[in-house]
Amino acid sequence: RRGEMAKATQLIDNEVFRAYATYTAIVLLKMMLMSLITAYFRITRKAFVNPEDTASFGKGESAKKYLRTDPDVERVRRGHLNDLENIVPFVGIGLLYALSGPELSTALLHFRIFTGARILHTFAYLIPLPQPGRGLSWAVGYSVTFSMAYKVLKTAWLL
Amino acid sequence: RRGEMAKATQLIDNEVFRAYATYTAIVLLKMMLMSLITAYFRITRKAFVNPEDTASFGKGESAKKYLRTDPDVERVRRGHLNDLENIVPFVGIGLLYALSGPELSTALLHFRIFTGARILHTFAYLIPLPQPGRGLSWAVGYSVTFSMAYKVLKTAWLL
Amino acid sequence: RRGEMAKATQLIDNEVFRAYATYTAIVLLKMMLMSLITAYFRITRKAFVNPEDTASFGKGESAKKYLRTDPDVERVRRGHLNDLENIVPFVGIGLLYALSGPELSTALLHFRIFTGARILHTFAYLIPLPQPGRGLSWAVGYSVTFSMAYKVLKTAWLL
Repeated sequence: RRGEMAKATQLIDNEVFRAYATYTAIVLLKMMLMSLITAYFRITRKAFVNPEDTASFGKGESAKKYLRTDPDVERVRRGHLNDLENIVPFVGIGLLYALSGPELSTALLHFRIFTGARILHTFAYLIPLPQPGRGLSWAVGYSVTFSMAYKVLKTAWLL
Repeated sequence: RRGEMAKATQLIDNEVFRAYATYTAIVLLKMMLMSLITAYFRITRKAFVNPEDTASFGKGESAKKYLRTDPDVERVRRGHLNDLENIVPFVGIGLLYALSGPELSTALLHFRIFTGARILHTFAYLIPLPQPGRGLSWAVGYSVTFSMAYKVLKTAWLL
Repeated sequence: RRGEMAKATQLIDNEVFRAYATYTAIVLLKMMLMSLITAYFRITRKAFVNPEDTASFGKGESAKKYLRTDPDVERVRRGHLNDLENIVPFVGIGLLYALSGPELSTALLHFRIFTGARILHTFAYLIPLPQPGRGLSWAVGYSVTFSMAYKVLKTAWLL
């Protein structure tokens, strides 16, 4: 039993994999934070989408008026969807990249730039910053994932 | 070649990893089920979004009236998106957690509570149950993923 | 240090895992391409959603008229969301499947059909092709993921 455990945990003993695990946990937690920010704006702006969510505001018309969209809520939701569209490829391609034997320094460079770019992207979306702030932070994260995909395909290629 | 295969399949011999594989397959299949439920409501409620999907109902105005939103369809779609927002972090962080060497009993506790909470969340969304049914089931799944992320960061931390 | 690296890269030496890595990188890059197509249509159709994105078109009413939805933009966005809903389960279940010790030929069959089906699905959505073109390509990809999930659950089952 100990032997099996040791085998399974050897990945986490590898430094590149540990870096991958650290940055993946951070960007996924950042993405999860978007749910809390959406909930915060839904409650403070009183803007809900499900009738059962407004039941505590009373019955009938008095509750119905809170079934509406709010610009701030929609903005956070767009940021959340953009996270899904970009962090999912990072997590999937990043795992394969971490297993493709990159140098630790190169891997750290990729993970750090991606994570920084996505945190900047969230601030650029929520504040909001004037363009091209959001566009550039999006493009930087996108390019990092693309660079990792190139390394994965070069190392693993078997079609 | 046999030796290589054996190495690659040793992960699946580890009990924590087998538990992770089982629960991940279950929650991803549950998420995939949302596509079928959406299709079911689109067809029974005759509510489509793409013009080419209504071509079998005839041409022109007679088909155009089925290009509309339906509350039941939109409800399933919101449940599906909520699954994506919550199951993606579980799958990503859960993999790292399974490789971070947790006790089998602790890991099973995390996986079982998350899976149960997400199944409850789907029922709470689709029936729908009065709040805080959906909110609580969401929060339980969220907390489990957060707890796994804490273990991952404590074990793997390399920034 | 070399020993550790060797251990971490042994997965990528396994042929089934290399095939998984290749096809996963391809479908995730295909999904990422949807962001570029959305941006292309937003710019050529002048249809934006964030006020800060239209600032370069001038101030006030002259810029405000570009804050609108466009059928082509919405179509690409639906294709992108459908990718997320279907490629996420493929990436997660496919990883477990690749580690469950399938024959290389069987694994290649699954990965190739899924990847082909999703590329077809994108063309069927964007051109658009008449139904059931898009529906069938969706169903083929869905079935492949289901088949992999069955193999994972049969091999790993530990509830």
